[in-house]
Amino acid sequence: MTGTLYGLGVGPGDPELITVKALRLLRAAPVIAYPAPADGDSLVRAIVADHLPGGQTEIVIRIPMVAERFPAQDVYDAAAAEIAGHLEAGRDVAAICEGDPFFYGSFMYLFGRMVERYPVEVVPGVSSLMACSTTLGAPLAARNDVLSVIPAPIEADVLKARIAACDAAAIIKVGRHFAKLRRVLDELGLAENARYVEHATMASQRILRLDQVDGETAPYFSMVLVHRRGDAWQ
Amino acid sequence: MTGTLYGLGVGPGDPELITVKALRLLRAAPVIAYPAPADGDSLVRAIVADHLPGGQTEIVIRIPMVAERFPAQDVYDAAAAEIAGHLEAGRDVAAICEGDPFFYGSFMYLFGRMVERYPVEVVPGVSSLMACSTTLGAPLAARNDVLSVIPAPIEADVLKARIAACDAAAIIKVGRHFAKLRRVLDELGLAENARYVEHATMASQRILRLDQVDGETAPYFSMVLVHRRGDAWQ
Repeated sequence: MTGTLYGLGVGPGDPELITVKALRLLRAAPVIAYPAPADGDSLVRAIVADHLPGGQTEIVIRIPMVAERFPAQDVYDAAAAEIAGHLEAGRDVAAICEGDPFFYGSFMYLFGRMVERYPVEVVPGVSSLMACSTTLGAPLAARNDVLSVIPAPIEADVLKARIAACDAAAIIKVGRHFAKLRRVLDELGLAENARYVEHATMASQRILRLDQVDGETAPYFSMVLVHRRGDAWQ
Repeated sequence: MTGTLYGLGVGPGDPELITVKALRLLRAAPVIAYPAPADGDSLVRAIVADHLPGGQTEIVIRIPMVAERFPAQDVYDAAAAEIAGHLEAGRDVAAICEGDPFFYGSFMYLFGRMVERYPVEVVPGVSSLMACSTTLGAPLAARNDVLSVIPAPIEADVLKARIAACDAAAIIKVGRHFAKLRRVLDELGLAENARYVEHATMASQRILRLDQVDGETAPYFSMVLVHRRGDAWQ
């Protein structure tokens, strides 16, 4: 009996924002797997720490910093092989993911390696997009608004065109791209309508106007929300 | 002591896709409120039915069909007044919402009426967007994809321009706009890359190619996902 690989979205940071389904599968799995930086603690493991029953085997997938831009294929190959060993031995593996596994998540690198060979089940989660909107205390998009999710690493001129072509935008993966994004929003006259959110729903949550943000220290997992209707969250 | 109005996202349909936090607040509230059609049962109440402890006061907000396009202001005024009565009497009220309360949800009409007068707390939920992506078994957007959420009721030429300006699109509120959407996707050469999803994560879930869809009977809460990379979910 082959085990099943579960891709579990555990939500944006507040441990209570995990779903009942993901919590059930997380607790039942004999093996859990999660990403972590090359040095230091895993954010997603910290989110679920109080939910863990103890005694689970843990596979730590250590991702080099450069993988923010270029996925570390050898790291995922090794993780996939280790996970496959457990599945072949009949043990289920729960891969835990911040937010939602299929919303710009690194789970896709495991999924792509496993789905044709093993049973894989994905459980959706509350994404950072919804968490940021709640944090700002206003609907991100409503009625017939077009909402675009735009990764900040794209070229400035494309970034500008994409923001101009929607009513509300969530710009993700801001980090070291903050200065470029700020210039683009200034050029579009939208800087006043934008808010920067980091660590939404966590104790360290911060909401800032753009002129309050230090672009040198903005983390990769930060987001800027902007709405053409300037009063959407002011 | 004034009560608190909670806006609880209960997820896309599978009762287990409610968060631990929303479940706790749902069970503790002496009063629950939810939308329902003018005649017939409430979909969102059905999602949480097995979670209810019994003995709660229920406020049913009956929305006329036309409110799909024009919110029924008088209906929300009356619901807000009824909810306010409970809050004034010190009773918390849990307004339950399919998916996420701030993601194109009707909760915004209650929120706007209450937030300046009463304590309001919003709990994000798993949205239909994430549920559809999981259902299709592939990442909706990854790496530096631009993902746009586009309401189908907008004009055909705007719809076409918005779809052309992103890598992946989730077209929501499809219902009676299916024929228009299909024409637009044919003109863009993207019909083969699109999938229609209805009732994601529920027992009645259906995934169809566009040529399998009956545009006359597509429900309002249906979605078409399309990706420029045609093999994203095939």
